[in-house]
Amino acid sequence: MNAYSPIGPVVGIVGAGQLARMSQPPAIALGIELRVLAGSSDESAARVIVDTRVGDYRSLDDLRAFAEGCHAITFDHEHVPGEHIRALIDDGHAVHPGADALVHAQDKAVMRERLTAIGAPCPAWARVSGPGEAAAFAAGHGWPVVLKAVTGGYDGRGVWVCDSEEAAAEAFAGAGGPLLAEALVPFERELAVLVARSPHGQGVSYPVVETVQRDGICVEVLAPAPGLDPEEAAEAQRVALRIADELGVTGMLAVEMFQTRQGLLVNELAMRPHNSGHWTIEGSRTSQFEQHLRAVLDLPLGTPAMTAPVVVMANLLGGDDPDLFKRYEHVMAHDPAVKVHFYGKQVRPGRKIGHVTAVGDDLDEVRARARHAAVYLMTGEYT
Amino acid sequence: MNAYSPIGPVVGIVGAGQLARMSQPPAIALGIELRVLAGSSDESAARVIVDTRVGDYRSLDDLRAFAEGCHAITFDHEHVPGEHIRALIDDGHAVHPGADALVHAQDKAVMRERLTAIGAPCPAWARVSGPGEAAAFAAGHGWPVVLKAVTGGYDGRGVWVCDSEEAAAEAFAGAGGPLLAEALVPFERELAVLVARSPHGQGVSYPVVETVQRDGICVEVLAPAPGLDPEEAAEAQRVALRIADELGVTGMLAVEMFQTRQGLLVNELAMRPHNSGHWTIEGSRTSQFEQHLRAVLDLPLGTPAMTAPVVVMANLLGGDDPDLFKRYEHVMAHDPAVKVHFYGKQVRPGRKIGHVTAVGDDLDEVRARARHAAVYLMTGEYT
Repeated sequence: MNAYSPIGPVVGIVGAGQLARMSQPPAIALGIELRVLAGSSDESAARVIVDTRVGDYRSLDDLRAFAEGCHAITFDHEHVPGEHIRALIDDGHAVHPGADALVHAQDKAVMRERLTAIGAPCPAWARVSGPGEAAAFAAGHGWPVVLKAVTGGYDGRGVWVCDSEEAAAEAFAGAGGPLLAEALVPFERELAVLVARSPHGQGVSYPVVETVQRDGICVEVLAPAPGLDPEEAAEAQRVALRIADELGVTGMLAVEMFQTRQGLLVNELAMRPHNSGHWTIEGSRTSQFEQHLRAVLDLPLGTPAMTAPVVVMANLLGGDDPDLFKRYEHVMAHDPAVKVHFYGKQVRPGRKIGHVTAVGDDLDEVRARARHAAVYLMTGEYT
Repeated sequence: MNAYSPIGPVVGIVGAGQLARMSQPPAIALGIELRVLAGSSDESAARVIVDTRVGDYRSLDDLRAFAEGCHAITFDHEHVPGEHIRALIDDGHAVHPGADALVHAQDKAVMRERLTAIGAPCPAWARVSGPGEAAAFAAGHGWPVVLKAVTGGYDGRGVWVCDSEEAAAEAFAGAGGPLLAEALVPFERELAVLVARSPHGQGVSYPVVETVQRDGICVEVLAPAPGLDPEEAAEAQRVALRIADELGVTGMLAVEMFQTRQGLLVNELAMRPHNSGHWTIEGSRTSQFEQHLRAVLDLPLGTPAMTAPVVVMANLLGGDDPDLFKRYEHVMAHDPAVKVHFYGKQVRPGRKIGHVTAVGDDLDEVRARARHAAVYLMTGEYT
């Protein structure tokens, strides 16, 4: 390893959202100097990282200038074009994850092809280029059919649940491009597995969690997934570690799954720290943000051991009130152990602006505490 | 409370050392914007806090410009003159701790007078203006006598253990001013109690810890203090909370104590996050840095509950090698649960440049892990 005297290595993060922001605490501890490529200087991470460069992640020139002097480069989001990543690697930069891995988080059709090829469990799926093909898919698998934008969707956007060819036609009109069709899975609940993999190939899996969604947005994460059969949990971890390995992921990989009566099915992949892992900041001895930094620098990975038997994370979604800080007083007085995270973002209705985490021994009690804090911070009302 | 939309309050920290640096992670979580007054832009905290102002903490003009727009002002060190603090408060600023409290951490003679007045247990002490008075003190309490600089000493500097009037004369020659004489206490070990107090008067005490010193520098902190009688622990916490209350401390107060056969004696006070509390970052549900921010903003205080039965912190002191990062690989591979903290400071022999923390169930095992990591990081050698 190179000498970094008098400071540690520089890790460049493309994008300056809350994931880059939450990477700064472990970077501060480890003496890693973060640099972010931000769209503007008031973005979430730009407020807390000194070495903020303003630029466009779609511009190879901007990326090249940004990468100069970084010991490793990684991402706050998955929107950097693969050809730019390849160009940076050709320039001699260490970029994690690389383009050949990241494409599976950028292109849902490529992801489905690859997962099917390696035998990872998926819902029935097909590429469809118009409503007629969607109807043909439905003829085999039944309506409703889930149509998804192949690229660019997130938090429920770019997803249409269609119960007829007419509905599919509307989805295609809205999407303006080819879509992925998937059978609507009658799942019992949604799970997520976070794993880390280093360039050396070391892999670590966090406990399987349950993610509770509302309107396509994650509102709550329960760690570990309550009542999950240990065999099924181990199977979920094996699937996630295998995907990380087969796809050559470096850094964090989040594998979102459906738990069904017929077993587990992979829903989505994300190759970066993920909302389903925010609980690890207080709930694990190594947070996903520290783990990601360790992985992209090819350092040995940290233990994913939990700090308490039960951890619940609840997202804070923006409402009408732009000032949530005034509600800290009640929340902190009510529960001196709840942990509040704000992302320094402008409050907009429905936007993820922070989260709260509670830890303890009893799921019902811990969940009630997290909910009380989240609801009060968002609305000023008691639950 | 004022509205801070779209962001949280601004807390100004005078000084940009590692204490300000370690305040940034909880500030990031809580959406509190930190500002630091640094002597230069490459100081420890200046590397990780965007709003760094370069200036002189001894200049009232610099302090006034710095304070403008801060919702609360606090300190990384105790060197800001009391009259400047009073001027800032007269300007309408919220400064925590205030001058009347902070003087007890700035002036050891004032501290001894006040502690004696409120009945807090102290070693025998006297103000002495020359070696003759030191000898007179020794006539009553015996040699050796501990002479201390009334102001400005730290980490063993400004302390002389004298066994004769000649040695005392040398101390006075070195000090160049009046000194405080204290009886050398035959203590069994050193303890520290960290408490927080908010302007509202809410108080919280962390568990009593044992601090292990070498050459006047803290090298290791064991939390909780092993084998301490619960009654004596409760007494130590009562003494510390009472001192915080009587002195009107706002923010963190560290009370360093001697444990002797005759009971506890107060050794030193510090009014800020303190080396004896670095273990709280991973070892408590509320770190001392988060607690200090909550206190100076007059928010309800967080729980001091521990995250594990045993926590050991070991300081990293600089050696000959300026690049410690290359040793991360071994330390992290050897122990995936140890936590490393680097302060981003130039390595100089004997300088505190970081610390490591280990948590677990068994003191011997946890202590061995912390030591192994610290010794390896400092020297590249196994223990």
